Amino acid sequence: MTSHPDLRHGCRWQAYATDGRARTGVLHTAHGPMDTPAFMAVGTAGTVKAMTADAVRSTGTQTVLGNTYHLMLRPGADRIEALGGLHRFMDWPGPILTDSGGFQVMSLASLRKLDKDGVEFRSHIDGTRHRLTPAIAIGLQHQFDATITMQLDECTPFPADHDTARTSMELSLRWGTLSKEAYRPRPGYGLFGIVQGSTYPDLRAASAAGLRDTGFDGYAIGGLAVGEGQAAMLETLDLTVPLLPEDAPRYLMGVGTPDDLLESVRRGIDMFDCVMPTRAGRTARAFTTTGVRNLRNARFAADDRSLDPGCPCPGCTRHTRAYLHHLFRADEMLGPMLLTWHNLTYYQRLMQGMREAIQARQLDVFAAGVRAGWAAAEE
Amino acid sequence: MTSHPDLRHGCRWQAYATDGRARTGVLHTAHGPMDTPAFMAVGTAGTVKAMTADAVRSTGTQTVLGNTYHLMLRPGADRIEALGGLHRFMDWPGPILTDSGGFQVMSLASLRKLDKDGVEFRSHIDGTRHRLTPAIAIGLQHQFDATITMQLDECTPFPADHDTARTSMELSLRWGTLSKEAYRPRPGYGLFGIVQGSTYPDLRAASAAGLRDTGFDGYAIGGLAVGEGQAAMLETLDLTVPLLPEDAPRYLMGVGTPDDLLESVRRGIDMFDCVMPTRAGRTARAFTTTGVRNLRNARFAADDRSLDPGCPCPGCTRHTRAYLHHLFRADEMLGPMLLTWHNLTYYQRLMQGMREAIQARQLDVFAAGVRAGWAAAEE
Repeated sequence: MTSHPDLRHGCRWQAYATDGRARTGVLHTAHGPMDTPAFMAVGTAGTVKAMTADAVRSTGTQTVLGNTYHLMLRPGADRIEALGGLHRFMDWPGPILTDSGGFQVMSLASLRKLDKDGVEFRSHIDGTRHRLTPAIAIGLQHQFDATITMQLDECTPFPADHDTARTSMELSLRWGTLSKEAYRPRPGYGLFGIVQGSTYPDLRAASAAGLRDTGFDGYAIGGLAVGEGQAAMLETLDLTVPLLPEDAPRYLMGVGTPDDLLESVRRGIDMFDCVMPTRAGRTARAFTTTGVRNLRNARFAADDRSLDPGCPCPGCTRHTRAYLHHLFRADEMLGPMLLTWHNLTYYQRLMQGMREAIQARQLDVFAAGVRAGWAAAEE
Repeated sequence: MTSHPDLRHGCRWQAYATDGRARTGVLHTAHGPMDTPAFMAVGTAGTVKAMTADAVRSTGTQTVLGNTYHLMLRPGADRIEALGGLHRFMDWPGPILTDSGGFQVMSLASLRKLDKDGVEFRSHIDGTRHRLTPAIAIGLQHQFDATITMQLDECTPFPADHDTARTSMELSLRWGTLSKEAYRPRPGYGLFGIVQGSTYPDLRAASAAGLRDTGFDGYAIGGLAVGEGQAAMLETLDLTVPLLPEDAPRYLMGVGTPDDLLESVRRGIDMFDCVMPTRAGRTARAFTTTGVRNLRNARFAADDRSLDPGCPCPGCTRHTRAYLHHLFRADEMLGPMLLTWHNLTYYQRLMQGMREAIQARQLDVFAAGVRAGWAAAEE
């Protein structure tokens, strides 16, 4: 740990160690530290589904992500602001990152109309009409009191031809500048820009350069994990990450599987978010040190072993696979509750392992060990 | 506390104090104490719905109830026995009471056929054929390792004419004797008989006398809270409770509202179970010191107060009514989780209050205070 960081100009990332392109460090924020590489738990509508805030904390999660699209529609930004902000609302005093809403407008809302200034849409809940512009998206996140605010961008669909991808990237770049103009800096808070450009190296380079010119507290890589496949995603990281500032955190949005995390950290990514551990937990899929298991499978009906021996979560320390299997077969809420808890614990222990391995400059050895565990035939 | 109880002949109830007919004491069992009057949380299928075992413990709950009908069908008694019994299966080392299965056969199963020896039925899950007799019901509960086993009985439907009620009561009485013959006593475990007889004083008296002749570790009062109304229920308690042994615990099955608990404790009841706090919690209804609230109600949308100030549960200490309202509006699992937690906490604090009030011989004063709270117009 070096000297106490100066947060007057925003949140600040401090490196501890590197191992190849991989880095470990800490993002100092107004709401406490985020050790990186970090996995942020998705708390869409002001709750990490099936988890109390205490349970989320117990998994080692430091940062929660909120979705602006969901929160602006229900309960609404004015309501959250009046109730003291998202931290108080959901009992999460730690860092909160909110997305800009743009991604979910395009995937969830109806009657979307995109123009150069923003996007108009109808709520998927009640059909009411809404509009997002860079300034509106930043304003909403300000009302939420988000620790980290994301610029409004357009997540370029995949596949996209070069012209479409360029137009889309340039729109996001312009919105990045407008987002920065609208953003009100506060000590320990931050605004992140988002690199777009699909899988085109020249567009990714232009996007990264443009965002650096504008200047952000952190840089996200968007438009990946949208169907391009892991190989194309990692290639894009290979060429994009070196174009980003060394001293700012890098956030790969919406990623991913445990293997994606290993590969992306190796390429210099510091932050992740993904619904995978929580969504999988609700559908009986468990990430473990010996691979992925579906607890609905009949082979677990009489299995009196711990789901993942060594895991400190209550599902693993207190119960058997047979009990978890029973809960899912009987449609008991405790099944999703315990398996979400487990999966988040698994993800956070994986991140902790990577942070320690980078400190020891042993990330490849660590990754090989993790993969050997997945490959080991247990039964 | 008097001397250490001798559990060689079963669980044993020890009185601390009385206040009128109300009593407080402790039921010593092989799995620890149950302070009475006690409210047992319903854990139908091996889980108190929407709660981890730790969360249930944190509410002050000492005893959990399991439903033989559900457990025999899924995951099955052989499975639970092979996995070390229900205590290990559901991580509940404390006392567990199981019902006999008879009540839910009559309410849930299809193609029921009742004869003098037992009942045949088809599973509501997969249509498989099953049979319950007194000996089978006792054997299943033995396999579960239930701390307290209930005799097989027929819960007489309401209304029933005197002849029907007498025939039904006599069947239950005979099954009580057969249940006792099948039961294998173990130190700190117990078998309870069940008084039936609808709302007919002579039948209740005959049932109580017959059960006393057979001799049980505790006496339940069944066939109430089935539509007869609170006044008829309390009248039945008025005449039935004095016919039961002074030194054995008395259990009013399937009851009830907080007001039912106050009135029944006053009449000498020691144990209760009811789905009310847990089921209500899943449907946004909260029991509080100032009455029942439906958190879906729009008037809570901006209410930044604690649901029930002074309540130690996480929903009340960490969140606002507005947040709970939001969770139910957004169909988030955390709503049912937090409200179940709250309602069980409310029920257990009510029981704790009654136990202390009986010690102080102030039960009527306590009850008046509780009712004044419910009646207070808060808003």
